[in-house]
Amino acid sequence: MSPDTAAADRRFTLTLGCPDETGIVARIAGFLADAGAWITEAAYHSDDDSNWFFTRQAVRADSVDCGIDELRRRFARLAADEFHPDTEWRLTDSAARKKVVVLVSKESHCLIDLLGRARRGELPADIVAVVGNHDSLGELTESFGVPFHLVPFDDRTAAFARVAAIVDEHDPDAIVLARFMQILPADLCERWSGRAINIHHSFLPSFVGARPYHQAFARGVKLIGATCHYVTAELDAGPIIEQDVIRIDHSDSPADMVRQGRDIETLVLARGVRWHLEDRILVHGTKTVVFD
Amino acid sequence: MSPDTAAADRRFTLTLGCPDETGIVARIAGFLADAGAWITEAAYHSDDDSNWFFTRQAVRADSVDCGIDELRRRFARLAADEFHPDTEWRLTDSAARKKVVVLVSKESHCLIDLLGRARRGELPADIVAVVGNHDSLGELTESFGVPFHLVPFDDRTAAFARVAAIVDEHDPDAIVLARFMQILPADLCERWSGRAINIHHSFLPSFVGARPYHQAFARGVKLIGATCHYVTAELDAGPIIEQDVIRIDHSDSPADMVRQGRDIETLVLARGVRWHLEDRILVHGTKTVVFD
Amino acid sequence: MSPDTAAADRRFTLTLGCPDETGIVARIAGFLADAGAWITEAAYHSDDDSNWFFTRQAVRADSVDCGIDELRRRFARLAADEFHPDTEWRLTDSAARKKVVVLVSKESHCLIDLLGRARRGELPADIVAVVGNHDSLGELTESFGVPFHLVPFDDRTAAFARVAAIVDEHDPDAIVLARFMQILPADLCERWSGRAINIHHSFLPSFVGARPYHQAFARGVKLIGATCHYVTAELDAGPIIEQDVIRIDHSDSPADMVRQGRDIETLVLARGVRWHLEDRILVHGTKTVVFD
Amino acid sequence: MSPDTAAADRRFTLTLGCPDETGIVARIAGFLADAGAWITEAAYHSDDDSNWFFTRQAVRADSVDCGIDELRRRFARLAADEFHPDTEWRLTDSAARKKVVVLVSKESHCLIDLLGRARRGELPADIVAVVGNHDSLGELTESFGVPFHLVPFDDRTAAFARVAAIVDEHDPDAIVLARFMQILPADLCERWSGRAINIHHSFLPSFVGARPYHQAFARGVKLIGATCHYVTAELDAGPIIEQDVIRIDHSDSPADMVRQGRDIETLVLARGVRWHLEDRILVHGTKTVVFD
Repeated sequence: MSPDTAAADRRFTLTLGCPDETGIVARIAGFLADAGAWITEAAYHSDDDSNWFFTRQAVRADSVDCGIDELRRRFARLAADEFHPDTEWRLTDSAARKKVVVLVSKESHCLIDLLGRARRGELPADIVAVVGNHDSLGELTESFGVPFHLVPFDDRTAAFARVAAIVDEHDPDAIVLARFMQILPADLCERWSGRAINIHHSFLPSFVGARPYHQAFARGVKLIGATCHYVTAELDAGPIIEQDVIRIDHSDSPADMVRQGRDIETLVLARGVRWHLEDRILVHGTKTVVFD
Repeated sequence: MSPDTAAADRRFTLTLGCPDETGIVARIAGFLADAGAWITEAAYHSDDDSNWFFTRQAVRADSVDCGIDELRRRFARLAADEFHPDTEWRLTDSAARKKVVVLVSKESHCLIDLLGRARRGELPADIVAVVGNHDSLGELTESFGVPFHLVPFDDRTAAFARVAAIVDEHDPDAIVLARFMQILPADLCERWSGRAINIHHSFLPSFVGARPYHQAFARGVKLIGATCHYVTAELDAGPIIEQDVIRIDHSDSPADMVRQGRDIETLVLARGVRWHLEDRILVHGTKTVVFD
Repeated sequence: MSPDTAAADRRFTLTLGCPDETGIVARIAGFLADAGAWITEAAYHSDDDSNWFFTRQAVRADSVDCGIDELRRRFARLAADEFHPDTEWRLTDSAARKKVVVLVSKESHCLIDLLGRARRGELPADIVAVVGNHDSLGELTESFGVPFHLVPFDDRTAAFARVAAIVDEHDPDAIVLARFMQILPADLCERWSGRAINIHHSFLPSFVGARPYHQAFARGVKLIGATCHYVTAELDAGPIIEQDVIRIDHSDSPADMVRQGRDIETLVLARGVRWHLEDRILVHGTKTVVFD
Repeated sequence: MSPDTAAADRRFTLTLGCPDETGIVARIAGFLADAGAWITEAAYHSDDDSNWFFTRQAVRADSVDCGIDELRRRFARLAADEFHPDTEWRLTDSAARKKVVVLVSKESHCLIDLLGRARRGELPADIVAVVGNHDSLGELTESFGVPFHLVPFDDRTAAFARVAAIVDEHDPDAIVLARFMQILPADLCERWSGRAINIHHSFLPSFVGARPYHQAFARGVKLIGATCHYVTAELDAGPIIEQDVIRIDHSDSPADMVRQGRDIETLVLARGVRWHLEDRILVHGTKTVVFD
């Protein structure tokens, strides 16, 4: 990419959620116009149920008359003066490269897919570490140039302390549980709130917990699904980011579902991770707004 | 349709389920070959889990050297001699026109769709009666040339007795609950077992019971669905015939889901009803085999 | 619906397309804020390829400090003063009920579906007339309370003159070719430009013209589709509004495709018509922006 | 896997196509029953258009009273005595491990996906070699333990001679063009007929040839697709194995389509390759029967 192209592709992205009231759109639009900002993407949502307003706006960095820090200072003043105190907002700079840590067990499909996407530049982030509780994915990970950390889970408490130490050393923007198969302790759910992303191999809220494909087989459903969600202390109950399904039929055994389900788990997790890294997701209560 | 075409399109259809053992396929194939039958569709399924075998075979009626009654007698002899006593089988003749009764409340979408399909000849059956607990769909039904029976539900027990009387007078092949919104009493579930087909407006087993779209909205799912199933005494727990989903997002209110969900309810019910009428569904325990 | 609810649901909707430049969003947002408008939906698109900007904004009518005519006058002044002369915009009032005329031949599925949706209030419009070149759908149409006009096509030129007279008498917001099977003459394509909507039973640009399902069968494709598009003088080449597909396989004959294809034609046309009537579609050159 | 499990999972698979006539099913079923064969999968198709009959039957190897060679000899005798001389059939043994060679250029997504599936045992075959015309995928390939052969394409004729030499040395069951971007010369199309599988990044027959996503963008379609097909001498016109699509909208640039299209290319190719390796595809003329 030439320097010119890179500069043209750099974005400042504002995401904001606040109690809805007339004039918010105008205030934000006026603010951006005053800074000379050329808007490349703008999305809005007014939620009737919660009476909350959400927006995401991406602007060309090279059109703005100041840097990201100054823009943040200016927006903070505007927010303090004119927005509801419960307002939550972020201003991010695509030039500040994000970091991802991936937690895995033995299943390789989501990990290989994420490593491949990162290698192709599909994710605006670097995978800086992979932590696994088995060594089976170590060599594979390292062949993509990513460090692999083996943390055996003989002693669960000690193991999670070690996992947390490795993760927190990187202060990552996303901690991705790519079929990690271990339930995060409540303190880590709290500490990584809004950053820990899990893939569950069912269409939630159906088939919470263990062996969801076997549950699906027993019930005789005609579609199986996968759900990408933020991790919270309650198992498989966090805000849903993305879901999808594939068709099965009576000829599919649980083993067939496991195999076919991998494809949908892989895609659903990849979409969720990308949206998170592109600041497309706003969490409000137990639900998400996704400006995809 | 010319007589010749009609004759060429007439089918005898065998459906059979039995404990699996070597040689069943050969015995059935030999039987059909001996009768001179030209097979136009044949489907098989061996279920590893239950060790049960299922098949559906359609043959050109004009290729068989006898009528449907004689063919049934012959097959009964074969089954008695060579098949497991638990074997269940049917032999149907497409020239014997099937009958459908539809139960409705106020929602028109599934009813209009089924009436339209019957009018176009998409269903191998006649809709012989519609029973409604409100009069709002009466004129519409009759404009398609189908009798409408109003049964108010002030007294639920009396009402169901009246519904049952109307339905049973026709001895229909299918009783379709097209958003009927009333829970069938256990005795009718039993009497109409394997013939009563319901459409539930969620992707079961998620969101059983009332107001599933509101439940879906509250949980923040990213897809909503519909499920067509045989009615059993346990609410929304009967053998699933067909399911499908559509994508929603944060901007969809429960009212939007109700509107969009109609499209998927309509399609899923129509598929289930057609497969049932074409003898494509074999029920085994709490699950279905669908040879679509 | 109570008067209060009705008032709360009334919307003024602005759609606008213009050459892109910095500050447009702010000017529009400022304009709406000055009028006291409570924005309920806002969507934007900047097209890199044409360097054109598009927006659609819906506001609560009861929040605006004037009526629709005055709002139009004010916006016209703003546009004249501050927007590029090529700017195209509309301001519509959901209280001004729209009108639809449907053109049909013998196939009933799209017509029944649209009549059903209009009956349920899913479309913000009335179907004011149906014109058919066969009488087979007349009784059906009238059972929904809609006038049916039979125009035989023995003399194509005279027939189209008659069709045009019936249509133009209503000055409809949409002329829907619901499997009309007649090619509109160029002068009507021109006169009804941006208002005439067709459903073609293939996934365009594959299988233009006659018997697309037979073309699809001959090629051996694994999906068949339908395309809703604005009618232009070049056959099946108008701006595409919506498309969708369904899966088929080797066992599906052209007749099976015709039957299954109806479901997707019906849905795709219904979506396109609804979006058109809700002012969600902006045409630019040979393409559409759809703010669904 | 224990030896017992492995033995239970071993299959002999018969695929057959012949002119349709009464009694074929019975002859095959009788043949298998005589050999003691326990059928685990059976699929049939009678093609009305060509009047051709197709079947695929998988039986447990450990249920058959002879080995694969003797079974082939017996079936050859049956076919010679009782089947039409145009009959084409194969009998394969899942214990005879298949071989795949993959041809690539610079794009990594299909290759990584296939290597991942082979590693997980999802494909009943080994990827024995990857041939690339750039070196960018060499290290990645070798990290999966697969040899990579760099063949620069400065001299196209010499390059294809070298590619053919590498491929033919392995006598592979499938030659997979995983976004190879080079058009096979006619002699290789002929030599590898029925074994060379390509992925084209459009929903054929739309957008044949170069830069299909840019063609799709220019036309303004609302879905983009991918097509897996056998390679023939006419570009992008071989028998279609599998297709699928994903939804796009006006906000997607050609670059966005390229990125999103990768997901569907990957899945469609993977399905096609697996079906081919599992003997699920019968080619007849320009079309395929896929018993998936």
